[in-house]
Amino acid sequence: MLWLMDLRPLDHRSQYPLYRQLYEQIAEQIRSGRLAKGERLPATRELAGLLGLNRTTVSAAYEQLETEGLISGQVGRGSFVCRESRNAGVDWPSLLERNESAPANPKVSSAGEMIRFVTSSPSGALFPLDEVRTTCRAVLARDDLADILQLGSPGGYEPLRRYLLETARRQGLALTGDDLIVTNGCQQALDLIGRILLRPGDAVAVEDPIYPGLKNLLTGMGARLIGIPVGNDGLDLTLFEQALRRERPRFLVVTTDFQNPTGVTLPLSARRALLELAHASGVPVVENDAYGELRYHGESLPPLKQIDRDGGTVLLRSFSKVSFPGLRVGWALGPKPLMERLRCAKEAADLHTDQLSQAVLLEFAQSGRLEAHRARVLAAGAERLGATLDACRRYLPTGTRWTQPEGGMNLWVRLPAPLDASELLPRAQKEGVAFLPGRYFEVARREPGALRLSFAGLEPEQIRKGVETLGRVVAGAMENAADAEPAPALV
Amino acid sequence: MLWLMDLRPLDHRSQYPLYRQLYEQIAEQIRSGRLAKGERLPATRELAGLLGLNRTTVSAAYEQLETEGLISGQVGRGSFVCRESRNAGVDWPSLLERNESAPANPKVSSAGEMIRFVTSSPSGALFPLDEVRTTCRAVLARDDLADILQLGSPGGYEPLRRYLLETARRQGLALTGDDLIVTNGCQQALDLIGRILLRPGDAVAVEDPIYPGLKNLLTGMGARLIGIPVGNDGLDLTLFEQALRRERPRFLVVTTDFQNPTGVTLPLSARRALLELAHASGVPVVENDAYGELRYHGESLPPLKQIDRDGGTVLLRSFSKVSFPGLRVGWALGPKPLMERLRCAKEAADLHTDQLSQAVLLEFAQSGRLEAHRARVLAAGAERLGATLDACRRYLPTGTRWTQPEGGMNLWVRLPAPLDASELLPRAQKEGVAFLPGRYFEVARREPGALRLSFAGLEPEQIRKGVETLGRVVAGAMENAADAEPAPALV
Repeated sequence: MLWLMDLRPLDHRSQYPLYRQLYEQIAEQIRSGRLAKGERLPATRELAGLLGLNRTTVSAAYEQLETEGLISGQVGRGSFVCRESRNAGVDWPSLLERNESAPANPKVSSAGEMIRFVTSSPSGALFPLDEVRTTCRAVLARDDLADILQLGSPGGYEPLRRYLLETARRQGLALTGDDLIVTNGCQQALDLIGRILLRPGDAVAVEDPIYPGLKNLLTGMGARLIGIPVGNDGLDLTLFEQALRRERPRFLVVTTDFQNPTGVTLPLSARRALLELAHASGVPVVENDAYGELRYHGESLPPLKQIDRDGGTVLLRSFSKVSFPGLRVGWALGPKPLMERLRCAKEAADLHTDQLSQAVLLEFAQSGRLEAHRARVLAAGAERLGATLDACRRYLPTGTRWTQPEGGMNLWVRLPAPLDASELLPRAQKEGVAFLPGRYFEVARREPGALRLSFAGLEPEQIRKGVETLGRVVAGAMENAADAEPAPALV
Repeated sequence: MLWLMDLRPLDHRSQYPLYRQLYEQIAEQIRSGRLAKGERLPATRELAGLLGLNRTTVSAAYEQLETEGLISGQVGRGSFVCRESRNAGVDWPSLLERNESAPANPKVSSAGEMIRFVTSSPSGALFPLDEVRTTCRAVLARDDLADILQLGSPGGYEPLRRYLLETARRQGLALTGDDLIVTNGCQQALDLIGRILLRPGDAVAVEDPIYPGLKNLLTGMGARLIGIPVGNDGLDLTLFEQALRRERPRFLVVTTDFQNPTGVTLPLSARRALLELAHASGVPVVENDAYGELRYHGESLPPLKQIDRDGGTVLLRSFSKVSFPGLRVGWALGPKPLMERLRCAKEAADLHTDQLSQAVLLEFAQSGRLEAHRARVLAAGAERLGATLDACRRYLPTGTRWTQPEGGMNLWVRLPAPLDASELLPRAQKEGVAFLPGRYFEVARREPGALRLSFAGLEPEQIRKGVETLGRVVAGAMENAADAEPAPALV
């Protein structure tokens, strides 16, 4: 019975079922040879009693062990180990099986001819390659080139860090108690914040729908996601308030401008109300502001970070969406105690962010080339957003609805019931157009008819043609749905 | 009593004491207002029974709550909540207190005049700046510059990934079932492997002593470190075998060439034996090979990855030590199932490694400039290592011992008892020389007299002068120790 002492306590808060946790531990003991062939396992009732588990949990674990051929049950006698310990060597599948994997990312065709409304990233055709070359040459001529190549600081390349912090101060974004650290884009800032504030089973409030990169990151850390539904005016504050009260999330992640995937923006009054709610319950707000600088028309609204004078908000920004996502440079601005911990977590994760790209982006910004590039990106973005909205109006069948972004890279389309965007995707791809179905963005709310159109990387003519094709596919599916036999009533 | 239902199960395996875990949860409930002022807590005996804890654990938690002014005990009546819920707003210190911080890194003076044997990184004076400039210009002229600036793949910039994998195949390092992914240096590869294979409380075998970056990373993940003592011939295989049997580590991290901090190398026979032991118990080996290409003399030994034909070893390498640590590019080579999971973890962590630096380092390697630079680094390293060993012989007092590395960047010095290197450091810094005391590298084995000398970044004359100063400081301390009153016997 020695092996019982080696069982680790099960995690009752985990999304991973208890019986699987128990199964894995026993399977590991059998595979490792600690439980030898022929040994008798305790009766399910007995083990359930010893471990304080429900008997059905133990039975389910035993059934799984039997299915895998690790034990066999003999009526009236009990269950016996029937497999030899594994052959020597590393059993990668079983090692890797133990820790839950993040859900796989969507796979969509990358065929060259396809019009791909798939990636929320800028158009490579807009990259000002000559200006990038000039910028890099200026960096190569710098006196501190050797310092750039040498081991750096976890907080960031100091000239860039100072530039970003001073800019934030000038823009009224930084409080006196704030500090700034450079990260590998917003994604790493989110990762580091999660590492610092989360333990498995903790709740985190996020927008619903939300982009898969954030969902996968947080669920991979064992967080419970509390989805706050997003409407045409951003997240639902009534439900946010309920979630604060009922779920006590460790923090909220919110994108106030041009949210990914919906493209919607939180109005000013809602920003104030959100901060009040978060403040009252002491819950930090992580403002994931990847798109804020990509407003094509309408009035700019202040980020939460600028309104919040109480130091409860962390602002994440990045060069990725506004310039070059291949250079992985973003930053986090927030209260010093948190930033100090982020520095430590950053050092543990990868020492520091690549310094060549930090120096290049600093030069790109300080030379005024970033601002000039942004002006071109805004002009192109306005044209592409206009083309998208226009094409939706012209080509999507009646009953289809979509959001009305004023910036960013994404627009959210809702097809009329009973259409399912996932089912439509293969047909659309066959016709030469790809998008991401809503289910990749779901937290709790099911929207089978929803899909994301990421327009920023496409030319206006591609957009027109792509949405026209999509409209045809949707119309076809609507006809089929109308033709289908009505489903029998389920009483 | 509703609040009891909200208590999360305590982690009995955590290094964080149970009473602290319980204290924190109750304190959080008081601060959040869920436990209101005036409410009565259960008697310690009662709560201990309900939670299946020792009564002293509950008492210790209550004492802490009382010390903090959150509850007050009234004789014969019990303990009552006596603090109002906190003022609104985010209480950063209490949020950050909950998750354990990695131990702080050593702070040593960075005064300009100081001879700093502190950083295991290459000499910036050796960086071939003009060749770096030529290399970057070649990258800027590439046809695929726009692709380099665009969002990339979690596995790495494909031309670099392919180049590294083909090189590894040519060198007999890659098995047919292997794959390779690019990371932000070896540090991130270790981080990603930990995320995939570890859950809090898991054991990991590491060398003892080990560099703080790895220790902090793993303990920050909640791993239990099993230190395998390192002697002059690398880690102790008898103790490794015991650890495999008793502790069942999830994996071993080992640096076979020029280990950091000791500088020692594992002999070929021991490499074979290590692999056999790991293979027999099915434990993966992570070969953290940052220094293998920096052998200044003596015969090269095959990495474990090359000897292991059973796919149980993952090889981590990087451009950092051999070229420019400010460009964060390393890679992991190992079995496909693990690499596939690393790709997912990498994507969650920061999408992908910076592509400009990947392209620059690829060009630096393919143009032959890396190899030419390495030849210069080897020549300089041989000179610096020679100067270090020579200075140790000349200047360190009798009774001092040190390792005899044949490459790398570090050497391990053991001062005669009863000297304590941490106590010596302030005196040494006053005399103008800095080093890292052994305690920063300790896992379980105490070596107060040990210290690391990182020599690669210093000129031979600095090395001579620094070790001479160190020798003087050590000799002075030995005299003081001899003069001291003998301590009274402790019976």
